[in-house]
Amino acid sequence: MKFNRMKQVDIRPNMTTNELLSTMKNGGFTCRKVALATDLLEQMIQDDACTIFLGLAGALIPGGMRNILRIMIEKNMVNCIVTTGANISHDLLETSGGSHYHGSEHLNDKKLNEMQISRIFSTLIPYDSFLKFEALAQKILKSVPDQRMSSQEFLFELGRYVDDPKSILRAAFLKKVPIFSPSFVDSMLGVQTWLFAQTNPFYIDILKDHSEFTKIVYETERMGALFLGGGVPKHFIMNGSQLHNGLSYAIQITMDRPEHGGVSGASVKEAISWGKVETKAKWIDIPSDVTLVLPLMVSGVLSRL
Amino acid sequence: MKFNRMKQVDIRPNMTTNELLSTMKNGGFTCRKVALATDLLEQMIQDDACTIFLGLAGALIPGGMRNILRIMIEKNMVNCIVTTGANISHDLLETSGGSHYHGSEHLNDKKLNEMQISRIFSTLIPYDSFLKFEALAQKILKSVPDQRMSSQEFLFELGRYVDDPKSILRAAFLKKVPIFSPSFVDSMLGVQTWLFAQTNPFYIDILKDHSEFTKIVYETERMGALFLGGGVPKHFIMNGSQLHNGLSYAIQITMDRPEHGGVSGASVKEAISWGKVETKAKWIDIPSDVTLVLPLMVSGVLSRL
Amino acid sequence: MKFNRMKQVDIRPNMTTNELLSTMKNGGFTCRKVALATDLLEQMIQDDACTIFLGLAGALIPGGMRNILRIMIEKNMVNCIVTTGANISHDLLETSGGSHYHGSEHLNDKKLNEMQISRIFSTLIPYDSFLKFEALAQKILKSVPDQRMSSQEFLFELGRYVDDPKSILRAAFLKKVPIFSPSFVDSMLGVQTWLFAQTNPFYIDILKDHSEFTKIVYETERMGALFLGGGVPKHFIMNGSQLHNGLSYAIQITMDRPEHGGVSGASVKEAISWGKVETKAKWIDIPSDVTLVLPLMVSGVLSRL
Amino acid sequence: MKFNRMKQVDIRPNMTTNELLSTMKNGGFTCRKVALATDLLEQMIQDDACTIFLGLAGALIPGGMRNILRIMIEKNMVNCIVTTGANISHDLLETSGGSHYHGSEHLNDKKLNEMQISRIFSTLIPYDSFLKFEALAQKILKSVPDQRMSSQEFLFELGRYVDDPKSILRAAFLKKVPIFSPSFVDSMLGVQTWLFAQTNPFYIDILKDHSEFTKIVYETERMGALFLGGGVPKHFIMNGSQLHNGLSYAIQITMDRPEHGGVSGASVKEAISWGKVETKAKWIDIPSDVTLVLPLMVSGVLSRL
Repeated sequence: MKFNRMKQVDIRPNMTTNELLSTMKNGGFTCRKVALATDLLEQMIQDDACTIFLGLAGALIPGGMRNILRIMIEKNMVNCIVTTGANISHDLLETSGGSHYHGSEHLNDKKLNEMQISRIFSTLIPYDSFLKFEALAQKILKSVPDQRMSSQEFLFELGRYVDDPKSILRAAFLKKVPIFSPSFVDSMLGVQTWLFAQTNPFYIDILKDHSEFTKIVYETERMGALFLGGGVPKHFIMNGSQLHNGLSYAIQITMDRPEHGGVSGASVKEAISWGKVETKAKWIDIPSDVTLVLPLMVSGVLSRL
Repeated sequence: MKFNRMKQVDIRPNMTTNELLSTMKNGGFTCRKVALATDLLEQMIQDDACTIFLGLAGALIPGGMRNILRIMIEKNMVNCIVTTGANISHDLLETSGGSHYHGSEHLNDKKLNEMQISRIFSTLIPYDSFLKFEALAQKILKSVPDQRMSSQEFLFELGRYVDDPKSILRAAFLKKVPIFSPSFVDSMLGVQTWLFAQTNPFYIDILKDHSEFTKIVYETERMGALFLGGGVPKHFIMNGSQLHNGLSYAIQITMDRPEHGGVSGASVKEAISWGKVETKAKWIDIPSDVTLVLPLMVSGVLSRL
Repeated sequence: MKFNRMKQVDIRPNMTTNELLSTMKNGGFTCRKVALATDLLEQMIQDDACTIFLGLAGALIPGGMRNILRIMIEKNMVNCIVTTGANISHDLLETSGGSHYHGSEHLNDKKLNEMQISRIFSTLIPYDSFLKFEALAQKILKSVPDQRMSSQEFLFELGRYVDDPKSILRAAFLKKVPIFSPSFVDSMLGVQTWLFAQTNPFYIDILKDHSEFTKIVYETERMGALFLGGGVPKHFIMNGSQLHNGLSYAIQITMDRPEHGGVSGASVKEAISWGKVETKAKWIDIPSDVTLVLPLMVSGVLSRL
Repeated sequence: MKFNRMKQVDIRPNMTTNELLSTMKNGGFTCRKVALATDLLEQMIQDDACTIFLGLAGALIPGGMRNILRIMIEKNMVNCIVTTGANISHDLLETSGGSHYHGSEHLNDKKLNEMQISRIFSTLIPYDSFLKFEALAQKILKSVPDQRMSSQEFLFELGRYVDDPKSILRAAFLKKVPIFSPSFVDSMLGVQTWLFAQTNPFYIDILKDHSEFTKIVYETERMGALFLGGGVPKHFIMNGSQLHNGLSYAIQITMDRPEHGGVSGASVKEAISWGKVETKAKWIDIPSDVTLVLPLMVSGVLSRL
């Protein structure tokens, strides 16, 4: 084995994020991982034979990542999205005129409950924002055709009726980037959809998502994935990659731990045993909050394209 | 404020797990939390007006918890289950004659891949176990009536045809404990169901699960919950409890962290702001691997009933 | 490679902790690790050629572990201790008539500050307990001979004057189990010693600890270690084992993570590269709060001896 | 309570790290914490009445932070340092011509042991680098006056004889920034010092560090602290701040968790109950690997000064 000497990270005033990333490669641990992951994301994007899957779990929009995710779609950094329902719901909440607020994890939850403010760690959502979201959701649902749809078809239709240039759903609709959300029924949007379905001949065929996702997988030469958090999105993408010959590129960013065996914290390395990641794949695990890594990483890639 | 003096934990040879739990209450940190959570679980069970919801996420059966979960059903420690598809799939895998094996997290994943052995942290599953699972799944699916079902109705039907006294699905069927799995399509069983549905007029109506779950919630006087891991099961139960006046009792066991805002690691305290947990509720967060806490806790409760 | 089939954990009413541990071996993840670590600790103890080193870091006595640590000394489960100053300080605080109290991590720290109550996560210490500790510390320091001592000699002398059957210091003195605390000056006891030294010709020669510890290491045929937390105690023991041919047995219990390179969270496996742990050593890493694992583990070993 | 609306993070090509930090303030969770911590560090530096204490624990130089720490000293971002011996040892190792290498946490530790390469997570150190370090250490120790010194006096003397413009020790000597290392004896440098002391009338008086540190604390109007990791450095600084009226500013960056009560993972908030942090202090906890946060934060501050 041959190893390279570490040069140590260097900094100077007014450096760009890309310059910082390139010196971070001289460091160790998570510092270096993030720099290498940025190169890997760029490489995936440059590989025309690679379809890039983006897995979205956790509170990304309450974490402030909405614009960055939209930019990734608009700049062709991603070709297919699998997400929890929460990310769609919070995207629509912002579109509806509702908003997220800066709070603190140390606030008194009983007081917040009296004030009708819901807390997501240090981010807050007041009740009226939920009302705005619900009104918008019901309005859009009326526009959606009454037919048996996969979550992907359903979200594509929603995107058609979202009139908001900042919306992730809208950007995906315009760029024809499919969004799968196999578990979206377990979300605020899922509840609104259920309410709507009580009085409308309307339902979601989750099994159909498998057919559509599998089709994309089989038509792909190479698969790459960026996992922001784990959960259903990670598992669903990995399930597809197993039907293919495994991911050729994989970046995982999560604070979850592997020791209890759950899929969210499972190492990318473990997925090699399953054939979900190629034995020759390029991959990196980043043990960090996504909100800290994604802005730095994507601003770097944005400067290189 | 009045505080009680800590006595320190004491041990002696041949003590029972219940005796250990009662002296652990004299300790601090996680030691005491587990002892208090055991009392709280007992209290939930003794409260006849309380419906106990069990949220199952993560690799519980690869972690060895299958018998304990079944015993909880048989001994009326739980009234309603919400689970990921994985726990159902691994329950069926054991029923099928397949098995989980003791391995190590330090094994070479490329070698395991060549040997067709899949790794879940330190637990292994050989390929033939998956084949046995798939054969059983297809066999049972043939028995299930071709109709539009919720995941709950579907899993109840599966339980009818599982001939295995050790099975969680079977025990739940016999005790009429409903099992909801809103995201089960994203699991090995989900894939088998999808394959089956390619040639059979068969599908799952996830929205219907909402109707059935909401009905249980509304008919309940008080709600209690034991969350083993987070994910969709935690979120789905919490969504129901918000429609009710919140959980009266809650125990959460997870290694996930709250700092990134994801639901899995969110503190029970945070749920108070949402009205998902009553302001006067009794609740405990336990930052630990479920496989370490559950055997001790349930063996304690078992001795008290 | 040959792997063993997992039997799943089984429980029954009124089982002993030892019975629980033996069925936990049939589980996976942390459940199994704790069961295997208990066997490993027993094996170290049964190995007459092995000197057992106990590393103590973190808030063990505020966590309720005082009696268990004392029992380990009295029952010859440990031959040499390396600890932070905090564990000695809190042992003396209990001896002084001061005490730790059950609180909560959710208390208002500003209010606690006004009430002169100090918080260690969920454990509380009122100001008067510190005063009792300080009075006892000064009283004992007066008895200690004015001479240049290593921390080990100093703590042995302290043990001579501690009249408390529940004290760890006392038990170690009686059993002639040396206690090293290379960083004890950074603790409440360290501050008291510093104050005392302002008016007394008295000082601690930390370098001398190296000489004494190295002597023990060289005279030992085999080394085994139980690391409760990391920090200086872990590093100091590992430094000694590197001079030897490495640890033959090692158990590490910590919630710290390895990804940032710090010694506290470093895996035992990593220490093999350093020669601090033998390539053929038996070792286990347990990712858990010590207060949850130690009572179960030691009660099990206690029943077997 | 009044809360501010979250604007979401925005990025563009070729933005500077400072521009990134200012938009990160519009995000949530760790993203926002890092941006706010950068402002807080700047504020501490601008406050002429504030003495800034830097606590260094963990593997900072194997993580690539050597230049950044030196720049912080040279640019007057820090007035007093408390560190583990490891950071001094690795600084000297680089000065000696030895080096750290890029490796991986997945390497085979038995093979590395055969190759005489020591692993610190993903960073490697070959045996000859240790030999170079030891030779340099012995050479410098010969120059140091034979007298009873505190660790601070000792490290200041070492700095005098380190001829390396990149060295942290050297920069601190030139800028007269005192470096305390109360537990340095438990490090590679400590071992070299111990060996040297076997044949030289030489020793370290750790109690004297208390006197010197206390003097700095009492002469300070306000105290601010940046804690990179925890351990002895954090505890030692906090012990000093308790003698003062507590820290006025505090930033903590660590991956350690609070739930087990150890000082390293304890929240800054907890320190308020102890009077170690003022009730009116400005403080931020950042749950992250230091190597990821420090380069971004310091490059930002560097651009503002």
